[in-house]
Amino acid sequence: MREASEGRETALLALEARFGTQFSRGAALREQHGHGEGYHLSHEPDAVLFAESTEDVSAALALCHEHSLPVVAFGGGTSLEGQVNALEGGISLDLSRMTSIIEVNAADLDCRVQAGVTRQALNLHLRDEGLFFPVDPGGEATIGGMCATRASGTAAVRYGTIRENVLGMTVVLADGRVTQLGGRTRKSATGYDLAHLMIGSEGTLGIVTEIQLRLQGIPEVTAAAICQFETLGGCVEAAIQIMQMGIPIARMELLDEVQMEACILYSRLEGYRALPTMFFEVSGGPDSVNEQISAIEGLCQDNGGADFLWSTRDDERAALWKARHAVYWACLAYRQGHIGISTDAIVPISALTAMILGAKQDIDASGLVAPIVGHIGDGNFHTVMLVPPGEAGLERARALDHKLVARALSLGGSASGEHGIGLAKKAFMGAEHDPVALDIMRAIKATLDPRNILNPGKLLPEP
Amino acid sequence: MREASEGRETALLALEARFGTQFSRGAALREQHGHGEGYHLSHEPDAVLFAESTEDVSAALALCHEHSLPVVAFGGGTSLEGQVNALEGGISLDLSRMTSIIEVNAADLDCRVQAGVTRQALNLHLRDEGLFFPVDPGGEATIGGMCATRASGTAAVRYGTIRENVLGMTVVLADGRVTQLGGRTRKSATGYDLAHLMIGSEGTLGIVTEIQLRLQGIPEVTAAAICQFETLGGCVEAAIQIMQMGIPIARMELLDEVQMEACILYSRLEGYRALPTMFFEVSGGPDSVNEQISAIEGLCQDNGGADFLWSTRDDERAALWKARHAVYWACLAYRQGHIGISTDAIVPISALTAMILGAKQDIDASGLVAPIVGHIGDGNFHTVMLVPPGEAGLERARALDHKLVARALSLGGSASGEHGIGLAKKAFMGAEHDPVALDIMRAIKATLDPRNILNPGKLLPEP
Repeated sequence: MREASEGRETALLALEARFGTQFSRGAALREQHGHGEGYHLSHEPDAVLFAESTEDVSAALALCHEHSLPVVAFGGGTSLEGQVNALEGGISLDLSRMTSIIEVNAADLDCRVQAGVTRQALNLHLRDEGLFFPVDPGGEATIGGMCATRASGTAAVRYGTIRENVLGMTVVLADGRVTQLGGRTRKSATGYDLAHLMIGSEGTLGIVTEIQLRLQGIPEVTAAAICQFETLGGCVEAAIQIMQMGIPIARMELLDEVQMEACILYSRLEGYRALPTMFFEVSGGPDSVNEQISAIEGLCQDNGGADFLWSTRDDERAALWKARHAVYWACLAYRQGHIGISTDAIVPISALTAMILGAKQDIDASGLVAPIVGHIGDGNFHTVMLVPPGEAGLERARALDHKLVARALSLGGSASGEHGIGLAKKAFMGAEHDPVALDIMRAIKATLDPRNILNPGKLLPEP
Repeated sequence: MREASEGRETALLALEARFGTQFSRGAALREQHGHGEGYHLSHEPDAVLFAESTEDVSAALALCHEHSLPVVAFGGGTSLEGQVNALEGGISLDLSRMTSIIEVNAADLDCRVQAGVTRQALNLHLRDEGLFFPVDPGGEATIGGMCATRASGTAAVRYGTIRENVLGMTVVLADGRVTQLGGRTRKSATGYDLAHLMIGSEGTLGIVTEIQLRLQGIPEVTAAAICQFETLGGCVEAAIQIMQMGIPIARMELLDEVQMEACILYSRLEGYRALPTMFFEVSGGPDSVNEQISAIEGLCQDNGGADFLWSTRDDERAALWKARHAVYWACLAYRQGHIGISTDAIVPISALTAMILGAKQDIDASGLVAPIVGHIGDGNFHTVMLVPPGEAGLERARALDHKLVARALSLGGSASGEHGIGLAKKAFMGAEHDPVALDIMRAIKATLDPRNILNPGKLLPEP
């Protein structure tokens, strides 16, 4: 922890002088910017600065660099692993006012947006053009924040994560210099891939202010289906076979029997049982959709799937997926008065049955209730740990979270599929990456941010 | 150019002592390792070392680092921009004996290979499992070399480039340290994306010795189609609409009228005219394939496409695509006694008509014949410049190549879609990337290779 010092006060005064009403030391704003949506303690910044342009970010970073003042970028505040906590104070640089959709190129299926645009706002804007942006983490995440955390979501199985959907970006470096990384073309082979080095760097290497995104055409037909299985293993085997057949599945989500029970109660799903359940979405031309549905149905039946229900009607499809998207609220209703804390890990799909059965043992041993939901095509899964209020409950939740990650790593997996490292998972960086890889990361960090002002204390464990 | 020195001789002797018959200073091997398949002068290494394992590469690099001896990694020798030329001598580190396919995980759709495995060998191995690896540059490229140059090919429009198909890799750093970057999971959000920093770094940051690749299931049905257009603009407009409709086109290639004339003569294509022509490949279930073909046919007709011929028969499909894959030989036959030199550039697809019409003016002005072929869905195109023997012809070819790249950059494009920078395109790095981005690249290079032994003189222009 850096000490508040005379130098720090000088820096804050200089920022206030430069930015006027865009700069605030108000208690409410500082509190709001001290944490994301995870369960970590709050770490408040000394001040909040609302950037309105790349020039603002550049000027702010130049000043912060001069005075070695820490800077934490802040977008929607929806990150889950403590990414936005201001561990060492300094300023929270809020980009949520940078909401301009700079251009949409329908012919090229791309667009350029400021970092504070949310995915929801972008998709609303795109709808009339018959286009959409497919990366869908939960929450009102901003595109800049999604880049920072290497976000993904339910559509990654078809369209990839944010990484596969960014063509280029404008980045401000620690010392305020502005650079364009990547470009507008769908691919390029001209030098080091710096745009993708920034993606997932959680604001520790630079601050992304504009992003060039790939877009997709809205498919002609979209259909939804649900299938319930006697066993979890049946779900996983069906999912493996669907992937192997090359079916271009749009979404494929697993809910375990506990999660289904919570959803049945909360979303009043009639006629369903508390069994492992798969939610599917397929899209394309009408014949292609019928063919996919038929193939999926066959593979589900081969693996012990029972009634297979599907619909291309918008209202029915919306009702099914509404239940999927409401899992967090269903969980909270399932144990009233508890808080819900999401875990995140990923394994090769062949290890998913062992992973989830092991996770259930870990959950039982913890004494917590923790329904499981998974982006099964990617091998990525979450539990929502339902935690009674108080430090003892939180302690059990932290222990369970760590146990699940350790189990994923032991199965050839990764400590995070999509929520990132932040503050909470630094301890796992050394378990997942070898010392040489960590050395390279530290060397790159030291090269790009020699004064360690960009989100200090995050992502990289101490040597 | 570094001087041959006593220190260099010491290093070579130490390598010879360590590696015995894997090490050679033979003239023929040195000549063979001094160039790729491009048209650049040869730059011979002092010696060639055949690595057979990651340990070999590590031991070799540790020795080279100790003695500051340059090292150029060599795979299939198929690169086109001078990537493997040993500009400053030293050793050519040949990985082509590292041909082990270490594991194939059918359930996870992934595999692990040594760097010297060619894509052809891998696909032969995978065929019986119903799987394939989709990245298909021309030539007998190795997977390691494809990572180094960020290769792609005709299937990138559907499956992405090598970048989107690598999950993880083993890399040896300049000083001989070995590290694992990335992993086995389909996605991950745990730290800086070092595996993708290595991809496209052309052997200047580390040497890739093993690669974890994503695989695809072989589709049930594959169909091919050809359509000829009155105008180039009609081709491009049809391609844009096919992309916008979200048709999961497997391949979509453009041949201009000059290229078609060469192909008609060489591959004896009956019934075709020398017009701008599109070659399509679609795949999936039978209904999906029919639906895609029907949609593509409609869009082609809307844009002035004439007879639309398609087939799902293996022999007919093979004949059509054989003609596409033979374009280089068709070009050589078209101007006998000339050499064929491929160019490479990429633009946003909306700029492709302007780009190609401009390219034709540039070609006419050059006095060369240069048929055009393009991965049209990506906006990436090549010309095969047919160059009379002699320095004057080469000079005209170089000038035309540079003119085409400059035109692509002026249209928002990139200097290379898939062939990379190497020696030949360093001059364009400063035109495409701003000085800050180049500074970052140089800083990363200096951090990872402080003695500048890894492929010195390539990719990064002098400051």
